[in-house]
Amino acid sequence: MIIDIHGHTVAPPQVYEFQARLLGSRGYPFDKFPQISDEQINQPLKRVVDLLDSVGTDLQLISPRPYLAMHSIQPAGVVHKWTEFVNNIIAQQVKLHPTRFRGVAGLPQSPGADIRDCIPELKRAVQELGFVGCQLNPDPMEGGYPEPPGLGTEYWYPLYEALVELDVPMLIHSAACCSPRESYTLHFINEESIAIMSLLDSKVFEDFPTLKVVVSHTGGAIPFHMGRFRAWRHRSGGEDFDVAIKKLYFDTVNYSKEALELAFKVLGSDNLLFGTENPGTGSVMNPHTGRTYDDLKPIIDSIEFLTEEDRRKVYEENAKRLYKLEV
Amino acid sequence: MIIDIHGHTVAPPQVYEFQARLLGSRGYPFDKFPQISDEQINQPLKRVVDLLDSVGTDLQLISPRPYLAMHSIQPAGVVHKWTEFVNNIIAQQVKLHPTRFRGVAGLPQSPGADIRDCIPELKRAVQELGFVGCQLNPDPMEGGYPEPPGLGTEYWYPLYEALVELDVPMLIHSAACCSPRESYTLHFINEESIAIMSLLDSKVFEDFPTLKVVVSHTGGAIPFHMGRFRAWRHRSGGEDFDVAIKKLYFDTVNYSKEALELAFKVLGSDNLLFGTENPGTGSVMNPHTGRTYDDLKPIIDSIEFLTEEDRRKVYEENAKRLYKLEV
Amino acid sequence: MIIDIHGHTVAPPQVYEFQARLLGSRGYPFDKFPQISDEQINQPLKRVVDLLDSVGTDLQLISPRPYLAMHSIQPAGVVHKWTEFVNNIIAQQVKLHPTRFRGVAGLPQSPGADIRDCIPELKRAVQELGFVGCQLNPDPMEGGYPEPPGLGTEYWYPLYEALVELDVPMLIHSAACCSPRESYTLHFINEESIAIMSLLDSKVFEDFPTLKVVVSHTGGAIPFHMGRFRAWRHRSGGEDFDVAIKKLYFDTVNYSKEALELAFKVLGSDNLLFGTENPGTGSVMNPHTGRTYDDLKPIIDSIEFLTEEDRRKVYEENAKRLYKLEV
Amino acid sequence: MIIDIHGHTVAPPQVYEFQARLLGSRGYPFDKFPQISDEQINQPLKRVVDLLDSVGTDLQLISPRPYLAMHSIQPAGVVHKWTEFVNNIIAQQVKLHPTRFRGVAGLPQSPGADIRDCIPELKRAVQELGFVGCQLNPDPMEGGYPEPPGLGTEYWYPLYEALVELDVPMLIHSAACCSPRESYTLHFINEESIAIMSLLDSKVFEDFPTLKVVVSHTGGAIPFHMGRFRAWRHRSGGEDFDVAIKKLYFDTVNYSKEALELAFKVLGSDNLLFGTENPGTGSVMNPHTGRTYDDLKPIIDSIEFLTEEDRRKVYEENAKRLYKLEV
Amino acid sequence: MIIDIHGHTVAPPQVYEFQARLLGSRGYPFDKFPQISDEQINQPLKRVVDLLDSVGTDLQLISPRPYLAMHSIQPAGVVHKWTEFVNNIIAQQVKLHPTRFRGVAGLPQSPGADIRDCIPELKRAVQELGFVGCQLNPDPMEGGYPEPPGLGTEYWYPLYEALVELDVPMLIHSAACCSPRESYTLHFINEESIAIMSLLDSKVFEDFPTLKVVVSHTGGAIPFHMGRFRAWRHRSGGEDFDVAIKKLYFDTVNYSKEALELAFKVLGSDNLLFGTENPGTGSVMNPHTGRTYDDLKPIIDSIEFLTEEDRRKVYEENAKRLYKLEV
Amino acid sequence: MIIDIHGHTVAPPQVYEFQARLLGSRGYPFDKFPQISDEQINQPLKRVVDLLDSVGTDLQLISPRPYLAMHSIQPAGVVHKWTEFVNNIIAQQVKLHPTRFRGVAGLPQSPGADIRDCIPELKRAVQELGFVGCQLNPDPMEGGYPEPPGLGTEYWYPLYEALVELDVPMLIHSAACCSPRESYTLHFINEESIAIMSLLDSKVFEDFPTLKVVVSHTGGAIPFHMGRFRAWRHRSGGEDFDVAIKKLYFDTVNYSKEALELAFKVLGSDNLLFGTENPGTGSVMNPHTGRTYDDLKPIIDSIEFLTEEDRRKVYEENAKRLYKLEV
Repeated sequence: MIIDIHGHTVAPPQVYEFQARLLGSRGYPFDKFPQISDEQINQPLKRVVDLLDSVGTDLQLISPRPYLAMHSIQPAGVVHKWTEFVNNIIAQQVKLHPTRFRGVAGLPQSPGADIRDCIPELKRAVQELGFVGCQLNPDPMEGGYPEPPGLGTEYWYPLYEALVELDVPMLIHSAACCSPRESYTLHFINEESIAIMSLLDSKVFEDFPTLKVVVSHTGGAIPFHMGRFRAWRHRSGGEDFDVAIKKLYFDTVNYSKEALELAFKVLGSDNLLFGTENPGTGSVMNPHTGRTYDDLKPIIDSIEFLTEEDRRKVYEENAKRLYKLEV
Repeated sequence: MIIDIHGHTVAPPQVYEFQARLLGSRGYPFDKFPQISDEQINQPLKRVVDLLDSVGTDLQLISPRPYLAMHSIQPAGVVHKWTEFVNNIIAQQVKLHPTRFRGVAGLPQSPGADIRDCIPELKRAVQELGFVGCQLNPDPMEGGYPEPPGLGTEYWYPLYEALVELDVPMLIHSAACCSPRESYTLHFINEESIAIMSLLDSKVFEDFPTLKVVVSHTGGAIPFHMGRFRAWRHRSGGEDFDVAIKKLYFDTVNYSKEALELAFKVLGSDNLLFGTENPGTGSVMNPHTGRTYDDLKPIIDSIEFLTEEDRRKVYEENAKRLYKLEV
Repeated sequence: MIIDIHGHTVAPPQVYEFQARLLGSRGYPFDKFPQISDEQINQPLKRVVDLLDSVGTDLQLISPRPYLAMHSIQPAGVVHKWTEFVNNIIAQQVKLHPTRFRGVAGLPQSPGADIRDCIPELKRAVQELGFVGCQLNPDPMEGGYPEPPGLGTEYWYPLYEALVELDVPMLIHSAACCSPRESYTLHFINEESIAIMSLLDSKVFEDFPTLKVVVSHTGGAIPFHMGRFRAWRHRSGGEDFDVAIKKLYFDTVNYSKEALELAFKVLGSDNLLFGTENPGTGSVMNPHTGRTYDDLKPIIDSIEFLTEEDRRKVYEENAKRLYKLEV
Repeated sequence: MIIDIHGHTVAPPQVYEFQARLLGSRGYPFDKFPQISDEQINQPLKRVVDLLDSVGTDLQLISPRPYLAMHSIQPAGVVHKWTEFVNNIIAQQVKLHPTRFRGVAGLPQSPGADIRDCIPELKRAVQELGFVGCQLNPDPMEGGYPEPPGLGTEYWYPLYEALVELDVPMLIHSAACCSPRESYTLHFINEESIAIMSLLDSKVFEDFPTLKVVVSHTGGAIPFHMGRFRAWRHRSGGEDFDVAIKKLYFDTVNYSKEALELAFKVLGSDNLLFGTENPGTGSVMNPHTGRTYDDLKPIIDSIEFLTEEDRRKVYEENAKRLYKLEV
Repeated sequence: MIIDIHGHTVAPPQVYEFQARLLGSRGYPFDKFPQISDEQINQPLKRVVDLLDSVGTDLQLISPRPYLAMHSIQPAGVVHKWTEFVNNIIAQQVKLHPTRFRGVAGLPQSPGADIRDCIPELKRAVQELGFVGCQLNPDPMEGGYPEPPGLGTEYWYPLYEALVELDVPMLIHSAACCSPRESYTLHFINEESIAIMSLLDSKVFEDFPTLKVVVSHTGGAIPFHMGRFRAWRHRSGGEDFDVAIKKLYFDTVNYSKEALELAFKVLGSDNLLFGTENPGTGSVMNPHTGRTYDDLKPIIDSIEFLTEEDRRKVYEENAKRLYKLEV
Repeated sequence: MIIDIHGHTVAPPQVYEFQARLLGSRGYPFDKFPQISDEQINQPLKRVVDLLDSVGTDLQLISPRPYLAMHSIQPAGVVHKWTEFVNNIIAQQVKLHPTRFRGVAGLPQSPGADIRDCIPELKRAVQELGFVGCQLNPDPMEGGYPEPPGLGTEYWYPLYEALVELDVPMLIHSAACCSPRESYTLHFINEESIAIMSLLDSKVFEDFPTLKVVVSHTGGAIPFHMGRFRAWRHRSGGEDFDVAIKKLYFDTVNYSKEALELAFKVLGSDNLLFGTENPGTGSVMNPHTGRTYDDLKPIIDSIEFLTEEDRRKVYEENAKRLYKLEV
């Protein structure tokens, strides 16, 4: 069984029409969520199902598309309404294709707000909508100022408590980026590097030993710069960096074979989960392979040093265990 | 002939899907504008045509829907792309129904930017797309800080020069409002009041005697507070306020009869243009009349003190003259 | 009996000499309030009494002149001292002419400060000085940034509690305006519109059913745009806007007959109170009538559709009831 | 002949009534300056003349009272109008008592504005009103942020050019102070210290060798800390500090004998000018002497080490030469 | 016995190498304090001992060099580490020369932080390192914005409580100055003036009658402007300023004889403590005396009006009593 | 011959003592640079020479240690003096060991300042001190706000012009990081990723085809995420990303073999230059190899797929060509 833990919702344009109105009105006045019919929902979704079939994915975990999260838009009420609405859309999608999708919740994060404000929506998503995890944006300011506290600080503890209590993982994934010199897609990578270091230089895993954290995009820049942080750790006398990094999980959303090989060598098959972000950035034809960049299974299948057990873990078992998937 | 000078584009949801992506990516990277097919465009538009038929409007001038203008979103490139795209959509709509619509351009205004940055798009709209005027937002900061210079200041002069040169009117209409205590719809009203006073307390009409300015929504609060500003003027010794206000034009987008009566008394039929903003805020059934609030023709028809000539001016002649409509 | 609920204190120049010194020193050091003699006080005041006689007003409620309130001047101690001083001057004036004036308190509002800081002065004014109400500035920032919370938010609740407990009304009236594009007199109008909508879109009257709110200047722009907000309400399904607006009271400080007619039609004689702000902005001769703009009684007398009962309510009874005047 | 170079205007309360209105309206709208009658002007002024008689002063140079200058009030137009008005009042006062007063101009300084904006008013004061110098506030931000450029920077050069061209001195004197921990009177002292060091550590006197600068209040803290700055200079190898400081002039507004003695020893009688700021801060009875603190002539007369020539310079000759007084 | 209460540590360059690394890394990551050997420490220190011998000083109290305190550097952790490190260095120095030095602690002040954050380091210094007092910077923002609360406000009360409990004095001494128009050395003087006035205009000595405060540099500008503040006090009716100022102590760090004479006259020998800040700003040869500016004992010895008892107090007894020195 | 293009100066502690004084005084007053003797300079430097001998490096290019650059410290004069001083120290070091070192200049970058302010020091370093390149910090704000313009913008063009004219390369290397959630060492990586994308998404290499750019630390995260940016480029239709990235050069400062292998595969031996940053972050013993992490030659020697020619290019030829080294 092939489980892709990193997919984002593909919604019909009516969803974005509502987003436009919500942004335009800044939620004042606010009436009610529009009804998007199952038919409207299914129109783009069935193409995703076909896509999953074509690449051999059995189940995909889908979350709100991060770069559309509008976390930095003020006032915070806009973010709350938008997040709730998108989570509802995802629930509707899972209901339409219960064997192919599971929901991963967006959180209504707003810069400067108390992180506790996100917990009701997290609980609603998991307990009422049946979602299996959530997505966490380490930078709700979206590249602006002031920067949020690092993930290693106590600012985030109330959320970690809730996650531990619900026993669901969080997928670290930033959102848009307002900086004119940094695209959102590069911001993803940089924020993941910061998130990893902030968590590993903190007491978070002492305080929440059962917290489950998945880092998107094979961990930003960190696996490529292991030597730098190994030296750092040796110097300051902490735990080995190769040991520390195993407290985190990573997905395989990295579209080149040499990088995935490095990731497998450095992070290992116990800590990697199959993910493609398909359809998304990588859904363009690679002229050298004739397949899209995000069709990652053939690439992973071709990595020679992996065993069948390695692949089984990455494709299926790690995800089932972490997300407690009953499939 | 009935000409409604105040309509906003009704676009298919695909337009807003693009807006969402543009907002999410902040225009970095930017690929190209999506193609929206004539069929997609026409789906919501033919409902508008039916609507115009049902209320007896022959021609409607349509502009970008103001509260979706995103003027305050940074960086400015986002606003430029979005404005250009929406103007293109409007041109496509006019082409589909050339006897029923004319285009009024949005301008890519960005707070703090030089107003000259808007002139290329204004010229493109008028000279290449055949638009008959533009919409001006007196508050591109959208309720934020710092406030823009008043319309009476020289900040706006390069635009006024271009308008005079092109000989097209501008419709004063603000956009979204980011203040949590002021809805965008009330912001429209307040900004119109500020715009009128800033223009009339300035030398703009001395410097640009042929500038054509139309104020939305019957002029905000000013016609209702004429006494206050008449007294003000008497005190400081300027031109009579009743004379001064006639340098401006106003539309009839005000959904109550007693207010329209006051507007006709104070502003006069030479300075009022028929406008409804239909479909829009007023497109809800008035239980007392069985018609929508924005079905204004029956109301104007019922104002007893108006002559046929008054109505002809307001419904048709003022608009034809100001906008140089050839119909 | 004619009661004018909207007058502002006319103080001798010595009062402003103190204000200048207070502003210059920013209250550091502060010595003590200057003594203004009854004779000094009475010099300008007796001219006001003559004025009231000439227009037929029996009793005027007087409050601090709003545009001199200095609410946005930092530090807050300056505002506290100035407000206390002006309230004292008003008390001294009432004492000199006990049959002609009643005091309405200014509040020492400072942007960003806790609204509770105003309550001791409110209580002192009502309980010790015998004042019959207070004036509330919805924008102590005086057109600056950041904007204050809307009147519908819980920020203001401690004050509402105190008002309900004291059973006195508040008159909504903004102060100066620091924006170079908006005069204070227009700011009055815009702030009243925002205040009305913020209150009516909130739960304030559910939480404080006996709160008495009077809006200055016939309610800003709202009565002129009833149609817009009626449609709005119908759309979102709330209480009729015409019902909602009756929770508020309004004064007649609007210097044109057609506007007052509209106000009477829309707001009704149960919710309007006679007010003139005389002497003030309107105290200039209207060449068409030979009377000052703020001589409103002849205008109201001339509105044909009003009954004697209507006029009695507006001139006298509403004020007596709301302000619990014993005269 | 006794010339007091440091007096501030004593104006009737009507002047402050206008200031209050100007502040309240922020100059929008602005009508015209009120006429203050000679009689009103003279009422407080004749008490000053009596005062000068009683302490033996023949001629006093009077400037706007600094702590009322409102330099930091926005927008800048308020400052321009206020300054022009006060300079006019001073001109009217000089005209009333031409043998007893000379005018020293206030400048319409506004933080962040180009210093060139002050030059027209400086020229008007000197060339049209006959003033003999001006007052310069080194901190138009009045204790706020950001700090202005130091007096040694080129920001101020256009003003210095104008002063050299007009051949009139500037008196360094700060205005109000918005800091809650620093009174305006202490701010005077601190700003004078900063001004002296900024000028002496710069090339101003190389670039403007004929610039005439008088520092108020015996030079802030600098004469008391000569040793500190002598050592500083020796270390960095510049001109002797005792030589450098003689490029500046100082007045004697310091209300204790031991301090004046120190000032005479350190600054010398060629660089000190008699000044009292009377009436002002020091106009309170000193119980030990039975005279007011600002009655400085008896104190200076009692300093034993001064010669008659010293006193003549300080009382008369230095002022006559610097201000080119024809008396 | 000659006790110099105002010296600052002279540390080997290795200390500043650590400072550079701490600044560069902003304390992230932080490893551990470097070991500076006794030999390294002693290399510059023995030159100080020779210096003390040459000027006849028996004991010097040494504190961190204020202009290197880095109080305004963010984040606050940098300041905490740096302060702790320098206090340790001072303790090591005292240990090397126990008969010649005593430690005065730096405090890890950070702008905007709670002053309570400094108390653990204060207690460590006094109780564990044996320090006899601390240095307080009234402006941890170092000339930036916003200004800190005045020393008279309750912001500082927790520190005052701790000082009273520990029964040790604080020496008021500001640090660097980021303003381009004010050098740190002049900032010292201005901050001292502000500190004195803020304390004396407050209730601090009512609330903490046993608080011991020493002001550096003979009290900034205040002794030179006693007349100004005497008048001020008389006007507002408080305690005599000459009485009030005796609640504070002052050191003699003022490098000119005439100023020291003034200080002795105004402040008196009971309130002055011998201090030189040697080696420091004044350690440059005075060509007129052949001694360095900071060799103050010969100057004080030459002041004729001082008695032997005066000198004993200033050189020894006041310091012993205030700092509870057992020597 | 082995050339290490990425070394930073190892300076004696006296250099940091000067830095501390410069920071403390903020350059006001400024006297002169201290003389650091050749002996002092050589003490730490000869240890570096020994180090180079032990790892087999013949020549090292040395630049200022980036995290000590203080670029964000205000005012800018501090940065100018510090940079000039450090460049002088490097010149002195090169002079002491002319066969072992070459200088790479630091630039006095200050956030918000015109980049032209750096050109005189660049020219002095190259033309007078004989330096062979410079170091460029893409983030002189050091992690603060607002962010600088991206390297692809015209802000940087004057510097690029100067570099092209001088025909020397720039090494992209950020400095300190003030963010509490991001260490300077991780900031290096993130800034390199941003720099690469900003340059490659711009017209810089069209406008300056001969500009020579070396990116530190094997190019941040980009080589590890090639797939992401390949897809991105295909989507937007630009030049192949693998072609584009070859416009840049990269050094080998990456302390793990698997990452260097990836770098060689993706970037190729024509675009990589041997660099170690030794001594620095990696100078700690790797327990698995018995060598320090930054001893990179054995690692590169062990990469099996490299040819001798590959190694010769990377160790020697690329550096000689780019830096025009005559050795």
